[in-house]
This record gives sequence, structure tokens and C-alpha cells, in this order.
Amino acid sequence: MKIWQKNINVDKFVETFTVGNDRAMDLQLAAADVLGSLAHTKMLNTIGLLPTDDLLAVQRELKNIYADITAGNFIIDDSVEDVHSQVEMLLTERIGEAGKKIHSGRSRNDQVLVDLKLYFRSEIENLVLLVESLFNKLIALSEEHKSVLIPGYTHLQIAMPSSFGLWFGAYAESLVDDLELLKAAWKICNKNPLGSAAGYGSSFPLNRSMTTELLGFDDLNYNVVYAQMGRGKTERILAQAMSAVAATLAKFAMDVCMFINQNFGFISFPAHLTTGSSIMPHKKNPDVFELIRSRCNKIQALPNEIALMTTNLPSGYHRDLQLLKENLFPSFQSLSECLEIATFMLEHIAVKDNILDDPKYDYLFSVEVVNNEVLQGIPFREAYRNIGLAIENGTFQPAKEVHHTHEGSIGNLCNEQIVRMFNEVKASFGFDKVKNALDTLVQ
Amino acid sequence: MKIWQKNINVDKFVETFTVGNDRAMDLQLAAADVLGSLAHTKMLNTIGLLPTDDLLAVQRELKNIYADITAGNFIIDDSVEDVHSQVEMLLTERIGEAGKKIHSGRSRNDQVLVDLKLYFRSEIENLVLLVESLFNKLIALSEEHKSVLIPGYTHLQIAMPSSFGLWFGAYAESLVDDLELLKAAWKICNKNPLGSAAGYGSSFPLNRSMTTELLGFDDLNYNVVYAQMGRGKTERILAQAMSAVAATLAKFAMDVCMFINQNFGFISFPAHLTTGSSIMPHKKNPDVFELIRSRCNKIQALPNEIALMTTNLPSGYHRDLQLLKENLFPSFQSLSECLEIATFMLEHIAVKDNILDDPKYDYLFSVEVVNNEVLQGIPFREAYRNIGLAIENGTFQPAKEVHHTHEGSIGNLCNEQIVRMFNEVKASFGFDKVKNALDTLVQ
Amino acid sequence: MKIWQKNINVDKFVETFTVGNDRAMDLQLAAADVLGSLAHTKMLNTIGLLPTDDLLAVQRELKNIYADITAGNFIIDDSVEDVHSQVEMLLTERIGEAGKKIHSGRSRNDQVLVDLKLYFRSEIENLVLLVESLFNKLIALSEEHKSVLIPGYTHLQIAMPSSFGLWFGAYAESLVDDLELLKAAWKICNKNPLGSAAGYGSSFPLNRSMTTELLGFDDLNYNVVYAQMGRGKTERILAQAMSAVAATLAKFAMDVCMFINQNFGFISFPAHLTTGSSIMPHKKNPDVFELIRSRCNKIQALPNEIALMTTNLPSGYHRDLQLLKENLFPSFQSLSECLEIATFMLEHIAVKDNILDDPKYDYLFSVEVVNNEVLQGIPFREAYRNIGLAIENGTFQPAKEVHHTHEGSIGNLCNEQIVRMFNEVKASFGFDKVKNALDTLVQ
Amino acid sequence: MKIWQKNINVDKFVETFTVGNDRAMDLQLAAADVLGSLAHTKMLNTIGLLPTDDLLAVQRELKNIYADITAGNFIIDDSVEDVHSQVEMLLTERIGEAGKKIHSGRSRNDQVLVDLKLYFRSEIENLVLLVESLFNKLIALSEEHKSVLIPGYTHLQIAMPSSFGLWFGAYAESLVDDLELLKAAWKICNKNPLGSAAGYGSSFPLNRSMTTELLGFDDLNYNVVYAQMGRGKTERILAQAMSAVAATLAKFAMDVCMFINQNFGFISFPAHLTTGSSIMPHKKNPDVFELIRSRCNKIQALPNEIALMTTNLPSGYHRDLQLLKENLFPSFQSLSECLEIATFMLEHIAVKDNILDDPKYDYLFSVEVVNNEVLQGIPFREAYRNIGLAIENGTFQPAKEVHHTHEGSIGNLCNEQIVRMFNEVKASFGFDKVKNALDTLVQ
Repeated sequence: MKIWQKNINVDKFVETFTVGNDRAMDLQLAAADVLGSLAHTKMLNTIGLLPTDDLLAVQRELKNIYADITAGNFIIDDSVEDVHSQVEMLLTERIGEAGKKIHSGRSRNDQVLVDLKLYFRSEIENLVLLVESLFNKLIALSEEHKSVLIPGYTHLQIAMPSSFGLWFGAYAESLVDDLELLKAAWKICNKNPLGSAAGYGSSFPLNRSMTTELLGFDDLNYNVVYAQMGRGKTERILAQAMSAVAATLAKFAMDVCMFINQNFGFISFPAHLTTGSSIMPHKKNPDVFELIRSRCNKIQALPNEIALMTTNLPSGYHRDLQLLKENLFPSFQSLSECLEIATFMLEHIAVKDNILDDPKYDYLFSVEVVNNEVLQGIPFREAYRNIGLAIENGTFQPAKEVHHTHEGSIGNLCNEQIVRMFNEVKASFGFDKVKNALDTLVQ
Repeated sequence: MKIWQKNINVDKFVETFTVGNDRAMDLQLAAADVLGSLAHTKMLNTIGLLPTDDLLAVQRELKNIYADITAGNFIIDDSVEDVHSQVEMLLTERIGEAGKKIHSGRSRNDQVLVDLKLYFRSEIENLVLLVESLFNKLIALSEEHKSVLIPGYTHLQIAMPSSFGLWFGAYAESLVDDLELLKAAWKICNKNPLGSAAGYGSSFPLNRSMTTELLGFDDLNYNVVYAQMGRGKTERILAQAMSAVAATLAKFAMDVCMFINQNFGFISFPAHLTTGSSIMPHKKNPDVFELIRSRCNKIQALPNEIALMTTNLPSGYHRDLQLLKENLFPSFQSLSECLEIATFMLEHIAVKDNILDDPKYDYLFSVEVVNNEVLQGIPFREAYRNIGLAIENGTFQPAKEVHHTHEGSIGNLCNEQIVRMFNEVKASFGFDKVKNALDTLVQ
Repeated sequence: MKIWQKNINVDKFVETFTVGNDRAMDLQLAAADVLGSLAHTKMLNTIGLLPTDDLLAVQRELKNIYADITAGNFIIDDSVEDVHSQVEMLLTERIGEAGKKIHSGRSRNDQVLVDLKLYFRSEIENLVLLVESLFNKLIALSEEHKSVLIPGYTHLQIAMPSSFGLWFGAYAESLVDDLELLKAAWKICNKNPLGSAAGYGSSFPLNRSMTTELLGFDDLNYNVVYAQMGRGKTERILAQAMSAVAATLAKFAMDVCMFINQNFGFISFPAHLTTGSSIMPHKKNPDVFELIRSRCNKIQALPNEIALMTTNLPSGYHRDLQLLKENLFPSFQSLSECLEIATFMLEHIAVKDNILDDPKYDYLFSVEVVNNEVLQGIPFREAYRNIGLAIENGTFQPAKEVHHTHEGSIGNLCNEQIVRMFNEVKASFGFDKVKNALDTLVQ
Repeated sequence: MKIWQKNINVDKFVETFTVGNDRAMDLQLAAADVLGSLAHTKMLNTIGLLPTDDLLAVQRELKNIYADITAGNFIIDDSVEDVHSQVEMLLTERIGEAGKKIHSGRSRNDQVLVDLKLYFRSEIENLVLLVESLFNKLIALSEEHKSVLIPGYTHLQIAMPSSFGLWFGAYAESLVDDLELLKAAWKICNKNPLGSAAGYGSSFPLNRSMTTELLGFDDLNYNVVYAQMGRGKTERILAQAMSAVAATLAKFAMDVCMFINQNFGFISFPAHLTTGSSIMPHKKNPDVFELIRSRCNKIQALPNEIALMTTNLPSGYHRDLQLLKENLFPSFQSLSECLEIATFMLEHIAVKDNILDDPKYDYLFSVEVVNNEVLQGIPFREAYRNIGLAIENGTFQPAKEVHHTHEGSIGNLCNEQIVRMFNEVKASFGFDKVKNALDTLVQ
């Protein structure tokens, strides 16, 4: 039975259509839902809406349910509409009347809102840690192969000398900037919407600052209409942040698929990490990176999907928002897996030495030769013209040595600075403060 | 075991990552996969690659599998990678060596391609029939309520008189144009890619025209490189066609949510088809239409998702394409359900009479009054100015009668013409020809 | 002065903001606007709303304006809001009172609607002709280079032998399918919305069938509410059709950029069609194809932009729709230029011979060797296994000959069938009928 | 003449196609381009690549050009390819040989990169200031009308009492969160790419830390490959940040269009700020807000457009990136204008009093009545059931008083907290530090 049901049966077809995949999605919100109720009920007690005896019973049982969730022993019954109803039903079954009182001063709207924010915080932290593993692997590879030169391309044309040190390090530094987006999403998630009820507040004298502190939030979504307006908006910003990481991964995967192609042949992976063809017995395909690219491109489509589903909706809750879960929730797992498997694959990457010995790469050194003339006092534009003509005439002679020394160049990667930036952004999230608050709540 | 597996075990993590949700998705392709094999093996026999005894065994057993699929008794084993492997494995288990021969002259690439085209054809036909049901319901409501006037809005401002006849009929006619998109998708799906192998053809003397005819295709994807290039492209065009239908439904749902709002109050649904609130006991929310809107907006995001996943990939197959199934396949069901439940809800819609009696709608008739002056010989721009001033001065008197007679107006809806257009487009698909071919194949 | 202006000055800031870039955009609608008025006034005369003397004056002057537009001598004054006002103003200046009467039975809404449909029809025809030129060039190159082999890639890995014949021909056939989308857009554009007024029809006894015939439309947008609803919808469908062509071009450009890269080196263009670098004197960059790719990817974003701008708007006109012109109109020119310059560049493409002599391409022939064993009676799966092991052991010997004979393969390109399909779709547009109608109207 | 031109004329058609709209776009980069050169040349001097005499001449002349740009007296000649070439040409014309030396140690690639970052920083600051004006106006209106009640809707159904205080305040708070996104974009823009040359660094001993400090950047894009990779990525993140602001504005505009509709009638604007209709003399349309909505929805499409244009491009510069300017640059102006005109319109908004006296809004108070029962000791679920039945039976009596006291509710808007949050985020940008650096550079 639905908690809002009175005495009319909702048509079965309508019910199936409206519930949709909510039960499956809601399972992921279970832990957050209990955390929210732990805080909400403590607060209800302080404003006289939940007697202390009831509070004790409720807290004890909520912690039991939380333990079940953590242990993977929580399900949502087919007869129950969503996770909120399931928790409330379990509570009422086990401790009676007290269970019915916990919904005072709360609507399903702000309950979902706070569940989502708690869940998103946890997913963001998880992503940041996986990003860090990949970042560390990339930095390590950059250092390991810093002297191995590769062609650098512009317009996909042979351009100037590059190196594996630069290539791996570039993607590491890209993740630093991506972290800024995850940080913005984190800041927006880290404000408390609980107490906004259906988006118009409550006549009860709720203490929203108290639940804010109990749940480890940095601040409140003050205005109750705005708290509701955050639905959809929060999801989109989070999807944008995931897109940033996904875009970095997808580009890296594109490079890998190109560099592993036989016309380039710069890198390889052991046979047991590639796949074959049903008709071509010689094939060793880089399916993992093709799928990373594809999954990450799919994630890049998410912010737009959310925009299309929310644009032009007037303020106030609409049932439309329920469906935002369906592609967003699975993409946490998808992106996590991409980060994990990319890190895993990089444990096994092999890079080719002496690539630039191949004469087709001679022109890579034309800028070096121009610069040498400049250092001898010839104006840049003239030196450029001289070498250009030498190339046309076939008289160009490369000087196959690279002496780049400035910050961020082949000879001076500045990886320690990149690591420093990564650590600064990571430290600014304040994961510890959140962890401490939640640990206290469930103890 | 994977059919392309030789003597190296693919790492377990890699395997799980690469298989992904393919088994679940592939179940929907099972019937199409068997149809493709029925045609392919008949053709192999005519070019001497499958002895007649083997052909008979293969055909008998494929028909058994087809019957199992139709009856809902087909599964893909956890140890099997995809639907193609499952069918081939069943065949080999049941009829021995002959089962191993059916992959001659075929790659998994063109097998998937033909499966997708057959599956898409079937889904398009299904959608067209559901669109037709909704269309008929809308036309019936348009006729039933053709005399009930409502305000017509422009800029969401009260503008001119409209009617339920016009409102329902407009969405019916919208579906006619949507059918043109489904038709374009159908034409693109209705060409045979089988025989293109891995996108570069085969040295076997395949008879592609024969499989084209056996599978009821209109024509071939001739060029084998293009046949492969159709992957992703076909999906996107189909998603665009679904988006057209979805956009019509979403707009209709937006109108419904607005017209059912108490400030408008033009329409209503019985209580058992609406839902309540966990804290507001008076609520009867139009969740069904909010979810139609949301699902349909999600479907409108699909073509862009596919574009993002395929753009800038060079020609030739990439594993990226595998993931296109994941949001596309479920959207067939989602759109079908939206069409069905919209038709169902419209069985129960109630419209309000005498809406325009409310004096706030008086200005709706200002154009009528202008036109009356014009018919008396006053130039349009002057009449317009006169009535404008009367409205400013508060002396405007509406003539609350509507005498629209031209094609497509309140008094002359032309629904029979709209029905004629619908039937013309529907007839041009040629569903019968396809049905006859497939019936012959599985008999 | 604005034609809807009464006696209150609209604030200047508001005016600038609301007019936006409309004047620049509207210039492209000028010819269509006059065509619409030529038909509308003829019809007004037959229903007694425009005396024959006035009609003659109006027709004469409209034809003069049309000639000015065709000759490039038409402008929209800064003091005039849009093209419709400009034409009406010129008319009134030149022939007096009669000019004021032509707006009877018409709103700016249906005037814009019919202008857009006429304009879109003309742009679609233009695109089809440019597509045809590129198609013909691709077919010619496919025939010219049909014997020149290149590697075929899957997963961007060397896979099986392909040819320039297949490669050029594939993109030609892709354009055939793209034409189906342009055809769907054409059918939707080729219905007459004139007479729908502000979306709710008119009390005048308009003869909409007459204007339909005069303007060469195939049919009417009957329902006047739907006629208005076509705004935004028509634009999106047209953008989707352009996206199909753009996707084909973008993919081709990606291939070109890759094949011209020195690691592939399959094709080249003369130096005067490439560009250089400000610091690398050896560079000859394929900027034209990079910009085709980029422009075409931008066009692929258009349908989604239109969806975002129109989704969740209730029925009835909204000013939002005005802005749809801003990215859509320039993309006609952008896509036209891409088609033209691609055709132009292909006049100068050089292809490399004997590419497959390089031993790195030996594995391309592994399937041939498998198939040879199959033809000798070895089951496919066993032959596949044998060759796979030979490759692992380094004992594989390629048979560098390709004998593909089936429809659409290297040895049997079926270009004449592809041309046949192209011509069938093109013929079904019926451009001549439209041309005849419009020629009659302006004579 | 192009600076990379040697002795071959690029075909005219190719030239026109490749230059495109670059000159118009580049004008907006002119100031940034000179700033970059001021810093680059100072640094060149310290590493011995530009004699002090030359430096003095270059600096003096660059400052003259900067003054021209600021005064609006700078143009790009039709014969010149882009802004970088124009500045270099002017310099060489005026001070001779010294002008040719400034390109040492720099490529057009990193020159564009640093120009874009400087330009984006300036545009972000401009947006933040305009957001602040709108924010202040919304807070002022929230305070001014804090006691005026309006219906709160959920599912677009009458739900609970809200207020203009909540409504205006909600959009103010929304802008606070939007600022977090602008902040993330700012942080990503505020790192120095100069010195990365064509994406692979330089053999000159550049001092990148020095230019970082001179240009007021917070940090470097260290890795030179990453510095180039930031192209496209930076644009997308910036577009996402603009989308956040745009989404807030679009939603507000949707509310305005609905609340100004006669069925709601909650707000109004003076006649001179609305527009009319060409056939309906009574119309006063909210075109400004419809166009805000439409422009902002268009801006919301930008991040996806950029994603489509950059996805699946391998690392290294591609000419594709040039086109990113075309929709991005104009959207700075478009969004600025939307913010300005929204603030302007709000100066003139009138709100209606006593809206809730209308009996159709009685049900808004059902939750209050439920809560009253709960405060008297009745469990929530029973009180809910009681009032639900009373409503069904027609015996429900509203208590039309609202006593909300908790944080963020009708009676306790917490606007001062919202202002505090706004100020905290704004302060964290550090605009002063940037201003000081740039002022020093141009003095």
C-alpha cells in the first residue's frame, strides 16, 4: 500500500507505469535514507515532536536497518513503492506507533532531496579516490618513460618531438582540472535541503541548522523553494563534473586506440588483455579502450539529457524529476569502472623505444633548426623562411636532439608541481569532516 | 567460451567489462538472429557451402529455437558471450558438425547488422500501430468535442477562441508528420547488410540478392564498407524518428498538465488515475502525464547521445558501437508504453463545458470584432486601431460567436483529410510484404 | 513604427533586445514572403476581400519587389521591425491604401510559417543538388580507383583488404540514405500553413486549398492549431536531415585527416590546397577537412539545440520560436559550402598505389587463407583455429590476391545500383511541380 | 599575406573557407592578445632573446595599440588573417625589425590559448558583476514582498502556501550555486598556457613562471601537451558555467510567463515593456521573458555543441577548435544582455495582493490543518487520513494563517544568510589580484 493512498485504488496500469524502475534505483539511496532519518528524528525530539522513548527505539532500529544495508541484506518489497516507504514500513513493523511519527515535519520531497545529496557526496568521494589512483599511475608512467621520445602531432600531422613523459603527464594534469568540477559539484551537494518539506516549508518549528550539523553539511539550502529547485539542477551539475573526467578518459582512450594501431605502433598490451575476431584469426583488438571511450562519450551526453528533461519546467516539484535517476545512477558505476580498468590496463602497458629513429619523423626537428638560427641572431621570420625553403628543396638536415628546459617541457616535466596542485584541490573537499559527522550519527 | 578464443585466457576483469549488459540487450535480438540464419543458410546451400542434408537439419533446429524464442523460452547462458554464440552453441549441441558450418561467409559484424535491421523493422511496425491507436482516439475526441470552445493562447496570453476539436485534432495531425520520420527510418532499415562480413566483404560467392528477398528487404546496402557504416547511423536516424513521436507526446502532456491545473481547469481525469501526496491530503496529481513528458524528453536526448558516441570515429567497425543498444533498446518499450497509456488515459478524459462564459476570456473575441469592421469596408489597419483603443478605454464589447468556416478551422476541422493523410503514409510502409517474407521463412 | 504599435512607446532597451538579429535573418525570407503575399492576395480577391483593381496594383508591385530581391537590391530599414513590415511598407508607399488591405485574413504568425516553409523547400532543393554533385564525384572516384587496394580496419586494427573503390563508393551510398531524411523534411515542409492566422484560424471565408495550389504545396497543414505547432518541429526535422548529410561528411573528413597523416600516407592534396604553421616550416595541414569536420559536427548539434529551445513549451505561439532562425539559417550556407568544397577538393585528390606491398599489411589476408581452407572442406571454426595458430607461430603465409565477386564487394562494386537508388529518391521529391507553380506566380 | 606563407598561393576558395568568421571573432581577443605580448616580450628580454632597446620600442607601441583597442579604434584588415597577425603587422610597420622578433619562443597555438584564457577571465568577471546586480534586485524584491502570499504548486497542482518573498529569494539563492560553477571555470581559466608553443614546448629557455606572474595567473598549465589539451576543454567548462546561470534565468522566465498569464495573474509589467500582436489589438505579450528563456535555452545547448565538436579528437591541435569561438563568443553578450534586461524588468514588476483570498486556493492550507492535529498528539498518518476524508466529503475548513518560522521558510527567509554565501563565493575569485597585475602591465 502506498502511504498517500486513501480509499481509491489506483489503476494497476497507471501504478506500474508510475513506479517504473524506482525500486531498483532507490536501493542505492537506502543508506542515505536512513542517515537522513537518524538526523531528522534526533531533531524532532528536540522540538517536542518525538518523545525520547520513541526516539531511542527509532534510532536503535534505524541503525539495525543501516547495518543490514551495509551488509547487502536490504531489499525493497514488490508491494512497496520506494525506499522511503520500505524503511518506514520496517520501522513500524518492528517498533509500532513510533515508526509512524517520523514523517512529521518532512515530505517525501525533502526526504528524496537529502537522500540524493548524501548519496551524491558519497559517490563524488568515491570518484575522487579513483581519479587519484589513475592520476598516480599516470604520473608514475610519465616519470618512468620521461626520456622516450614520440612524435608530437598537430592537425594529425607530424609536428614536433614529444615524449611519453609529456603524454602520460598531460592526462594526469587534465585530471587536476577535472577535480575542480567535481569540487563545484561537491560544494553544491554539500548543503542541506532537509526541512524544505514539499518545497514550501513546514509550520513545525524545525531546527534545520541542527540536521545540517548532524549530517556534516557545510551549509543549508536556506530558501525552501530553492531547496526544491535544486532537484535536477544538482543532478545536471554533477553530470557535468562526471563529463569532465569522462572527456579526459575518452580522449586518452582515443589516443591509445590510435597509438596501438599498426600504422603508429607506439604502445602495446599483453594478448590476454585484448580480444579477437570471429573471422580474422590475427586480430588483437583494444576493446577495453574502445569501451572506455564509448562509455565516457555516453556519460558526456548525460548533462544534456538532464537539461532536456528539466528545461522549461516552472518552479515546484514535478514527477518528471523522478526519472533523472535512471541514467545518472548507473553512470556512477560506469565511470568508476572506467577509471579502475584504465588504471589496471596501465599497469600492463608497454611502450616502444627509439620510435624517432624512423626517417619519416625527421621533420619533427624543423623548429629546433629554426630556433638554432634565431639563437645565432637571425630574426625568427627569416629563419623560418630559410628552413621552409630547405625542406622544399630537400636539403633539410634534422638535428635530432632535444634540449627543452622550461617549465612543463620534455626536459622539465614539473610533475611534482602537478602533484602539488592535485593534492591542494583534493584537500579542499573536506572529506574528513563529513566522515566524522556520519560516523557519529550511526554509532 | 568465446568463439574467437584461441589459447589465451582473457583477463576476467576485462571480460566482465567488455561483455557489459550485452546478454540482456541481445535477448531482444534473438528472433531476428534466427531469421537471419534461416536466410543465410538457405543461401549457403545454393552456393555449395552447406550440403542439403546439413541445411535441412539446420533449418529444422533453427525453427525450433525460433518457436522457443516466440514462446519466451529462450535464454543466454552466463558462460556465453552473446545471442549469436548462444544460437550457434545450441545448434551445435543438437545437430553436431553442421552447426559449425553456418558461420561461413559471415562475420559477427554483418550478423549483428542484419539482426538490428530486422529488429528495428519490427519495432517500427509496432510503434506505427500504437501511434495509429492514439491517432484514432484523438480524432474521435476531436469529433466528439468539436463544439466545445476553449481559449487559444499565444505567448501564453489569452488570444483567440479555440476548441477541443482543434486541440485534439492538432495532436492527431502532428502524428501524421511524425509518421514521415518513422517512414524514413523504415526505408533505411529496410536494406540488407548481410554479406558485408566484417565490413570488407567475403571471398565466397555469396548471393546477397537472395538473402535480401528471403528476408523481405526492399533493397541491399550494396557497398560492404557502407553496410558497416550504417551501424550507428541507422540507430541515430531511428532515434530521431522516435524523438518526433516523443516530442508530440511530450507537448501534449505539457498541455494536459497545464489544462488540469486549477487555474485553467479545462480537463480532468477520474481519481483512480491520479496520485496523491505524502503530506497534502487534497492532492490529485497528473503523474502519468508528467512521466510521459519526462520519458519522452529523455527519448529526445537519444539522437544526441548516439551522435556523441559515434562522431569522429573513422570508418570501419569500433567496439564503441556495441553500447548503442543500451539506451536505444529500452526506449522502444518506453515509447510504446507512453503511447499505450496516453491512449488509455484519453479513454477517461473529461472536458469542461462553457469555459468561455468566464468574463476573463472576453478579449478572445477582439479579432472577430476587427474582422467584422473589415467586412464592412474599413481597412484592416484602421479597424485594428479602433478596437485597440476601445480595449484601452474599457468600451470593448465582445461578440461571443465564432463563425470559422475555412479548411482546418473551428467550424471545419477537416479530420477526414487528416485521416486520409495518415492512411496514405501508413500504407506506404509495405508491412505486408515483410510479413509475407518472414512467414515463409519460418514455416 | 511597428505595425502593432498603438500609442505607447516600447522602451528602447526592450525594443533592441526583442528585435535582436531578426532583420539580418529575415533578409533570407524576403523572396518567400513576397511569394506568400502573391498567393494570399489572389485568394483574397476571390473571396471578395480585395477588389480586382487593388489586386492588380498589389501583384504588379509585389513582382517588382520580387525582382529587386532576386537582383540583391532589397534591404530592411533599421526603423522597420522585420521583412513582413518592410514589404507591406514599400507596398503602401508605392500604391497607397491597397497595400494596407493585404494583411486581411492573415497574421504575422501564419505569414512567417509559410515563409519558412517556402524558404526551407528552396534550401532543401539546393542541398539535394549539392549532394548530387558530391555523390557523382565520389562515384567517379570509386570507379577510377576501383583496383587500388588499401587496408581495411576494424577496431582501428588492420583487418582485411579494402579498396579506394569501396571507400569512395561507401560515402556515395551513405548520401543515398541521407537523401531519405531530406525527403522526410521536404514532405513536412511541403504542406501549406497559410490561413492558420495566429494559430486559431480566421472568421474570413479563406480558400486555403487555393493558396496551397498556387504555392505548389502538396497538401495542407489542415488543423490551424497544428499549423502553428509545426513551428519548431519543422526546424528540428530539417536540422536532423542536415545532420545526416553532415555526419556523412564529418566521417569522411575524419578518414581523410587520418589517411593523409604520414603514418598512413594513403592520399594527398596539392600544396596550394593545404596550409602551414607559424613555427613549423615543414607543415602542410589538411585544414579544409578539419573545418568540414568541425562545421559538420556543429550542424549535428543543431537538432538538440532546437529541442532544448522548444521542449516543454505548451501549444500556441511563443516568442522563443523567433530565435530558432539564428543558428539554423547560417547552417544552410555552412553545409552548402562544406558540400561544395569537399567536391572541389576531391577534384584534386591523389591516391597512392601499391600500399599493400608493405609487409605490415600481410595479416589483412588471413581471412582469405581461412576461406581457402573452408572451400577445401575444413569446417570454418577449425580453419580459423589453424590460421590463428600459424599467425602465433610466425608461419603464416599470405596469399595476396583478392577474388571478391559478390554484390557490393571489391570486385563488384554495384555502383550502378547505388546510382539507381540515388536517382529514385531524388525523383520522388517532385521539384518540377514546385518550380512550375512558383514560376507561374511570379510571371 | 599570411605569416606562414611561403611561395605558393593558397587557393582562394580554400582561403575564404578556412578564414571563415575569424576576423570578427578575433576582434574580441585584441586586448588579450596585446596583454599576452606585453608579458611575453618582457620575458624574452630577460632570457636574452629581445634586446632592451627593442623591448622598449615594442612595449611602447603595444601600449599604444592597447589604447586604440580600449577606445574602439582597432580593426583587422581584410587582407590579414587574424588578430595575432594584425598586431604583429602594425608593430612591424611602426617600429621595424623589432616587431618581427616578438614571435620567438611562441606559436600561434599558445598565443591563442593565452588570449582565450585572458579573455575568458574578463568575461567571467563581467558575468559575475551582472549576476550580482540581478541577485541584489531579487533579494530586495524578496524582502519588499515577503508578506505577500501566493499559491505554491507541486505537479503544477495547488499545493501549499508560498510567498513572493520565497519566490524571489529562491532565484537569488540559485545564483549563489551558479557562482560555484563560474568559480570552477575561473580557476581553470586562471592558469597560464603561454610557453607551450605548438603543444610541445620550445628549445628556448623560456621563463613561464615570469609570464604567469605578469599576467596575474594563479598557476601554470605546466605540461605543455596539457596546455594545448585545454583548448576545447576550457570552452566547454565555461559554457557549462554559463549554462548554470542560463538555466536559472530560463526557469525564472518560465515562471514569469506563467504568472503573467491571465489564468494566474500574479504579476504584471507596465504596457511600455510588453509588445502587441499584428491581429489581436488587446495583446500585451511578455516577449522579453520569452526571449530570455529562449536565449538561455540556446546557451544551455552550447556545452553539448562543444562536446560534439571535440569528442574523439586525438590529442594535439586540430583546426576544428577554431570554430568553437563562433557560438561561444556571442553567448557572452547574449547572457550579459539577459542578465541586464532581467534586472531592468524587475525594476518595474508589480505584484498582486490578496491572491489567496480566492476560494480556489483553500486547499493550500490542508497541510497546516494536518499539522495542527499532529501538534495535538494525533499520529501524522492518522491526521493525514482524517483531513483527506474531510476534503473528499466537502467538510474541509481551511485555517488561512501561515506560521512558518524555521530557517528558509515564509516567516524566516534567511536572506542575510543567502547574501553572506554570495559574498563568500564572490570574494574567493580574487578579481583584485588579476586587476592589479594587468594594470601594472599596461601602465
